[in-house]
Amino acid sequence: MDSSQLARRAGENLNNIREKKPLVHNITNFVVMNYTANALLACGASPVMAHASEEVEEMVGLAGVLVLNIGTLTSYWIDSMVKAGKKANELGRPIILDPVGSGATTLRTSSSKRIIEEVSVNVVRGNASEVLSLAVGGSKTKGVDAIHSVDEAADAALGLANDLKTTLAITGVIDLITDGDRTCRVSNGHDLMGYVTGMGCTATAIIGAFLAVDEDPLEATATALSYIGLAGEMAAENAHAPGQFQMALLDALYTIDAKQMQERAKIEI
Amino acid sequence: MDSSQLARRAGENLNNIREKKPLVHNITNFVVMNYTANALLACGASPVMAHASEEVEEMVGLAGVLVLNIGTLTSYWIDSMVKAGKKANELGRPIILDPVGSGATTLRTSSSKRIIEEVSVNVVRGNASEVLSLAVGGSKTKGVDAIHSVDEAADAALGLANDLKTTLAITGVIDLITDGDRTCRVSNGHDLMGYVTGMGCTATAIIGAFLAVDEDPLEATATALSYIGLAGEMAAENAHAPGQFQMALLDALYTIDAKQMQERAKIEI
Amino acid sequence: MDSSQLARRAGENLNNIREKKPLVHNITNFVVMNYTANALLACGASPVMAHASEEVEEMVGLAGVLVLNIGTLTSYWIDSMVKAGKKANELGRPIILDPVGSGATTLRTSSSKRIIEEVSVNVVRGNASEVLSLAVGGSKTKGVDAIHSVDEAADAALGLANDLKTTLAITGVIDLITDGDRTCRVSNGHDLMGYVTGMGCTATAIIGAFLAVDEDPLEATATALSYIGLAGEMAAENAHAPGQFQMALLDALYTIDAKQMQERAKIEI
Repeated sequence: MDSSQLARRAGENLNNIREKKPLVHNITNFVVMNYTANALLACGASPVMAHASEEVEEMVGLAGVLVLNIGTLTSYWIDSMVKAGKKANELGRPIILDPVGSGATTLRTSSSKRIIEEVSVNVVRGNASEVLSLAVGGSKTKGVDAIHSVDEAADAALGLANDLKTTLAITGVIDLITDGDRTCRVSNGHDLMGYVTGMGCTATAIIGAFLAVDEDPLEATATALSYIGLAGEMAAENAHAPGQFQMALLDALYTIDAKQMQERAKIEI
Repeated sequence: MDSSQLARRAGENLNNIREKKPLVHNITNFVVMNYTANALLACGASPVMAHASEEVEEMVGLAGVLVLNIGTLTSYWIDSMVKAGKKANELGRPIILDPVGSGATTLRTSSSKRIIEEVSVNVVRGNASEVLSLAVGGSKTKGVDAIHSVDEAADAALGLANDLKTTLAITGVIDLITDGDRTCRVSNGHDLMGYVTGMGCTATAIIGAFLAVDEDPLEATATALSYIGLAGEMAAENAHAPGQFQMALLDALYTIDAKQMQERAKIEI
Repeated sequence: MDSSQLARRAGENLNNIREKKPLVHNITNFVVMNYTANALLACGASPVMAHASEEVEEMVGLAGVLVLNIGTLTSYWIDSMVKAGKKANELGRPIILDPVGSGATTLRTSSSKRIIEEVSVNVVRGNASEVLSLAVGGSKTKGVDAIHSVDEAADAALGLANDLKTTLAITGVIDLITDGDRTCRVSNGHDLMGYVTGMGCTATAIIGAFLAVDEDPLEATATALSYIGLAGEMAAENAHAPGQFQMALLDALYTIDAKQMQERAKIEI
């Protein structure tokens, strides 16, 4: 599949989400729950947030995909993520992990590593520091902010994707996606996205919706990142500061159609 | 009280909330806490969120009404809801329950049933699946989304309201409210409301504010649902996508006056 | 430092935040996490939310300042606040406490008092009722809303600041800041700020960012409150209801420059 085919696929995935309205089960952080739920609705998916140990297995059985995000983790939440993840594996549901702040604290690094060891995860999305911290001897991050460039990270990511047998997405000005075999770069996006809290977490949730309709994790991830990046570009056409911008981005997620998606996707493979 | 009297009552209730600024004690879910607090402020009420076992009884004593919402439940939160509910009963404070996702998982259904068994609840608001799941042999929902039409649900709701001795509100394109004796239908609203997360939860919180100033649960519920539906209609006059719309809806909650409310309420009894 | 010097300092502090992008570690409430994170980003700071007992000490070591807010407290969260606070003291990081609802319930009052007894806090910000509840025989609040005027509170605050050896900020139409020695009054602001949930909590977080770049707690607090008040004034120039206003306020936090800050700050000392 070449770049123009991926652009077409981006539009097809969007149409499929709007038609099938997949239930996206999120076990995520307190900061972004509202915004990511709104982003999933704007996209056409159906979000649910559920983290209770007693119900996560049952909920994941109703869902088309599982989104795990450790942003405001405690041990209870990580246990629920592992429990839900094992059930998702058993049922064949795709899983995406957002290792927020992995590398910044021991708890975050060890929790992320525990999840990828105990659960077979289809995609991991984070900034360069977070993703690369999953390697043995991983890097040290400054809070949840990136300290590595995407370029620095590309080679390391390719090797790590092979080691972990998963698709890795390192997002930044240019998003890098690799499954250890193929590598994509997505250049849609806008600087103001960095001024909206949880924009990365929102990208993770949107990738989740795409995974529910596209069996190829690399394709699903690249097309989803192109879509949210395009939404950022379109939002910036009307909004020039972060408050109006965050709402304009939800509007763009809702209004972008398959034709616009295909025409404006910037995905290189 | 006929339909035109209910429209006038809607405006009066709104004026009373703005004058008395009732304290609305919410034990609710993480996704909607911010938006529902903002909606209550825009309406003229005074929101407080408090769930700690040690303080819920004291807090409900300060409040005019208690709002219970199980959206991101764990057993700790349900225990606090029951504790606060029993105290509210003792003090004669009205209570509204939003059984988010009841019918979708065993935990949600059993927790909702536990609350209505141990606490005397004045109003239950949900979609058809959620509300009807409270019956013995209740229905099965797809996540937190409705699988029944309001029409399918009307007869069942009438019987259930009698069984439970409470007012039930099943919201959708047309909202159905019944106390087992009288039945109202509210047709204010707009499709974009379905693209804002927690819009149902927000309706529940707003009904809470109305319960604090109107002793008749059926009237309070019908007038509150007409008010939030009208806010949706007015928001849609200025905003055509979910991001701008969710903020325009808060604006409308703030700007709607008693005269507009009376003129544009669509409540049939 | 006189009033015009403080106005200049307000602009300098803002420039320093944008240059240094201090990491602000928040242990705060569920209602405001998203909005305060967005406000910190708009300001130029770098927010992180982390409350797990296992990681709060490590996280505070990465941060420039610690923000403690008890809005949706449970004992676990208060324990984490104390643990993080002790580490911040050890490392010389400034701390600000927002005792949300202190005075309203026994748990909130005793938790606030516990924090200021076990941790050396640099600034406490709240409404008059909350701040004055920290005194022995403190006042009784109605939920999280103020029942005292700022004027009533001024004398009491001066004495209390001396007792507690900390800077106190009582915010309202006029903000009063005192360290027991010097007293400032800040009159920037707009009525619509009272219709956005967590606006006080947001002020607290913004003061946190200013504490990370200004060693004088009184100056940092007064300049931060002038900045957020000015953002409210500028937001109200474009937005006349709470929904649009809350996003316009984030926009203003982002767009205000040092020159505007200096010209429009209203800080009396």
